[in-house]
Amino acid sequence: MPHTLLDDLCHELALANRILYDQQIVDGLGHVSVRHPDDPSLFLLSCNRAPGLVRPQDIVCYRLDGSSVDAHASRPYLERFIHAELYRSRPDVMSVVHSHSMSVIPFACTDSPLRPIFHMAGFLGEGVARFEIRDAGGNTDMLISSSYLGQALARSLGSNNCVLMRGHGSTVVGTSLQQAVYRAIYAEANAKLQLAAQGLGEPMFLNLEEAKLSSNMNDGQIARSWALWIQRLGDISLEE
Amino acid sequence: MPHTLLDDLCHELALANRILYDQQIVDGLGHVSVRHPDDPSLFLLSCNRAPGLVRPQDIVCYRLDGSSVDAHASRPYLERFIHAELYRSRPDVMSVVHSHSMSVIPFACTDSPLRPIFHMAGFLGEGVARFEIRDAGGNTDMLISSSYLGQALARSLGSNNCVLMRGHGSTVVGTSLQQAVYRAIYAEANAKLQLAAQGLGEPMFLNLEEAKLSSNMNDGQIARSWALWIQRLGDISLEE
Amino acid sequence: MPHTLLDDLCHELALANRILYDQQIVDGLGHVSVRHPDDPSLFLLSCNRAPGLVRPQDIVCYRLDGSSVDAHASRPYLERFIHAELYRSRPDVMSVVHSHSMSVIPFACTDSPLRPIFHMAGFLGEGVARFEIRDAGGNTDMLISSSYLGQALARSLGSNNCVLMRGHGSTVVGTSLQQAVYRAIYAEANAKLQLAAQGLGEPMFLNLEEAKLSSNMNDGQIARSWALWIQRLGDISLEE
Amino acid sequence: MPHTLLDDLCHELALANRILYDQQIVDGLGHVSVRHPDDPSLFLLSCNRAPGLVRPQDIVCYRLDGSSVDAHASRPYLERFIHAELYRSRPDVMSVVHSHSMSVIPFACTDSPLRPIFHMAGFLGEGVARFEIRDAGGNTDMLISSSYLGQALARSLGSNNCVLMRGHGSTVVGTSLQQAVYRAIYAEANAKLQLAAQGLGEPMFLNLEEAKLSSNMNDGQIARSWALWIQRLGDISLEE
Repeated sequence: MPHTLLDDLCHELALANRILYDQQIVDGLGHVSVRHPDDPSLFLLSCNRAPGLVRPQDIVCYRLDGSSVDAHASRPYLERFIHAELYRSRPDVMSVVHSHSMSVIPFACTDSPLRPIFHMAGFLGEGVARFEIRDAGGNTDMLISSSYLGQALARSLGSNNCVLMRGHGSTVVGTSLQQAVYRAIYAEANAKLQLAAQGLGEPMFLNLEEAKLSSNMNDGQIARSWALWIQRLGDISLEE
Repeated sequence: MPHTLLDDLCHELALANRILYDQQIVDGLGHVSVRHPDDPSLFLLSCNRAPGLVRPQDIVCYRLDGSSVDAHASRPYLERFIHAELYRSRPDVMSVVHSHSMSVIPFACTDSPLRPIFHMAGFLGEGVARFEIRDAGGNTDMLISSSYLGQALARSLGSNNCVLMRGHGSTVVGTSLQQAVYRAIYAEANAKLQLAAQGLGEPMFLNLEEAKLSSNMNDGQIARSWALWIQRLGDISLEE
Repeated sequence: MPHTLLDDLCHELALANRILYDQQIVDGLGHVSVRHPDDPSLFLLSCNRAPGLVRPQDIVCYRLDGSSVDAHASRPYLERFIHAELYRSRPDVMSVVHSHSMSVIPFACTDSPLRPIFHMAGFLGEGVARFEIRDAGGNTDMLISSSYLGQALARSLGSNNCVLMRGHGSTVVGTSLQQAVYRAIYAEANAKLQLAAQGLGEPMFLNLEEAKLSSNMNDGQIARSWALWIQRLGDISLEE
Repeated sequence: MPHTLLDDLCHELALANRILYDQQIVDGLGHVSVRHPDDPSLFLLSCNRAPGLVRPQDIVCYRLDGSSVDAHASRPYLERFIHAELYRSRPDVMSVVHSHSMSVIPFACTDSPLRPIFHMAGFLGEGVARFEIRDAGGNTDMLISSSYLGQALARSLGSNNCVLMRGHGSTVVGTSLQQAVYRAIYAEANAKLQLAAQGLGEPMFLNLEEAKLSSNMNDGQIARSWALWIQRLGDISLEE
């Protein structure tokens, strides 16, 4: 079977899973997906497996209703509807990361707003959305386990890049896999800085224009960090 | 000698010890046990050894009075009575983890309640018990070093899954070894999140129904994390 | 081609990059430079590469206008003007480290002053400068991406050893490469201590004379730490 | 040359150095000593070397005036007088650890008292001393670099096990090398817990009797932790 561009993308998505684990954005839970390059009504996501263990052969192609194209695919993540509905509602989004990263959750569970405290997180400048699952589903197990809840999450996200999920975690979106991974890592870094700074006094945040200019500038520098993140992983292609 | 199911359980218990060390729930101290699968009046626990060094051959079978079935067993932990008395008072409990995990202790030593701040710790929703050793034993070395003190701890735990021990640490119970390990890890994660969130404002916690639904859901997902935790350890069967 | 003293300096500068990454002062971003030993109007700095990956062959020689001596040099860092303008304005400075180290930024983004809380950071005693990029450039992408902004930063630094950059990070200078690396590491340590101490009460800081005496004393002890930092890296000369 | 008991002690002291580094109690600075087993007017301490790099052959034998028995010994630590004067004033002390461990320093630089918050740090119950170097030496480089300053430190320590040194760090003493290392590690753990707990509310500390009983009990359990700490180091005897 000839090696295809899709094979390359599955390999890169497996690397993205490993990076998010290595950078401590995900533990045994959390997931990252990428929209199918040829068909915007499909997306690629690992089967139900810890991100730190995902291999290219674990990647499954899903439809926007959460069903897998291959009827014999391995057991899926319960929350694949996060990805499905964000791809449906946001044609500009090419990649989605959902995590329980530890510094962001305190902002999801209190009224304290998450705002860009340094240039690396300029992408937060447009605003960080909040999602209260009780508004859509009443008392639940907190998971986005249906198209219905995924749509509610998508409405909360709106045109933002990041949504805080009360009692749960957060989700970021990007126009590329590398950008979404970058945003998950620096949303966490920004939250960590903000937690410390708010203990000292009132932080001065980036204003809207600074945030936008920083965000555009950072997009041209992601490759530098990506090369580092990849190098830390060693050769994952050797795993069976 | 043929390989038995009990051998498998001793191996899994050794892995549980290593996981708790690798995940920074225990240091040189702390312990995890499992009830004997064939005789509910017995339980398996390592001899007096740091959890990060426990091997299958270190596992000892104890009676509920804290004595070892094998009269020639190695020196025991002073606090095996925690395990013995929780198994005696709680027939539903199949596994117990006692630790000094660092984010939980601040809740054990202040009046601030530990409550479920995210779905991963839904098992805390039924309530977190508190144990004051002075009430049972006056001034002590703080250890649960007798059946008498173990019984007092069991009374404090009641029907909860987690008990905070003032000036000491905490203990969680589960209906399986994997569940108890999971609960020790996520009690710590929840405490870490709560410490940060309470610095920002008043957190909104899961309500009782959310906590229960989350806890049930999580029980179906533990295998995913367990596979990751195991993979990090390498092959411990090679150690002598 | 004979091995030269400049080759040795490029090797040491590559090690300095790796040390700053290993000590968690820089991540994929940040940079360290050293003035050219033979020509004070030149300085050595890596091309656009994550510090944790820098090799001796990545070092480029720049002029104080930010242009590279070798017209065919690899893509430069956008912020080489930090280094250029600090070398221009401060003849005593032989090395510069710019970073986003995580404990320092909260001081850069609030009014809380960074002051020497222990002897290891006596070099902060003369005062820590602040830089507000809006004063010089209005709304920007926050980077020091021109000689003009570099000159504004140099004016803010004045005769100090450390400047806090709002919404961005910090920069330290030294009279040698080893001293600048030391200062970046212990500015971060001091900030981490101060964040914790200010939660407890009002810290007592070193006074001016204590800070000066400590700083002079420490300069005679850097070699001990440097040997440790190097040893942790292994042999980087083997990388291609 | 036959292998002697002193050789064994030098090896154990080198291990103690490595343990303190591995457990993040010391970085490039800090030191641990042990009194000479045959002559109470002598003590063993590494030459001027980062603890994480100390080998048995780096151990030097010093007199209580800070001079080395071997006139050709390598360059000494500036602060060997901490050790010398504590051995002189406290015949019960057999080992001393001086460090800048990061959670303890905030207590050294504020008025907030360090007290035993859990049983592992019962040794703090007798009281934690404070040392203000200005009282003895006016403005200094903060180091205990003379017999005179060492004697002032010894007076501040009095009969306690731990002394906080303003603007500098802390020193603990023990009746054995293993006990002093244990105390340095758990003074740091206690401080870390106390920093977190004081953010939540007013902690309940061990009372004097609990602290004393815990401390005595812990002394019988140090071997368990020591075995773990050693195992993490690998075989240091192979280094040259």
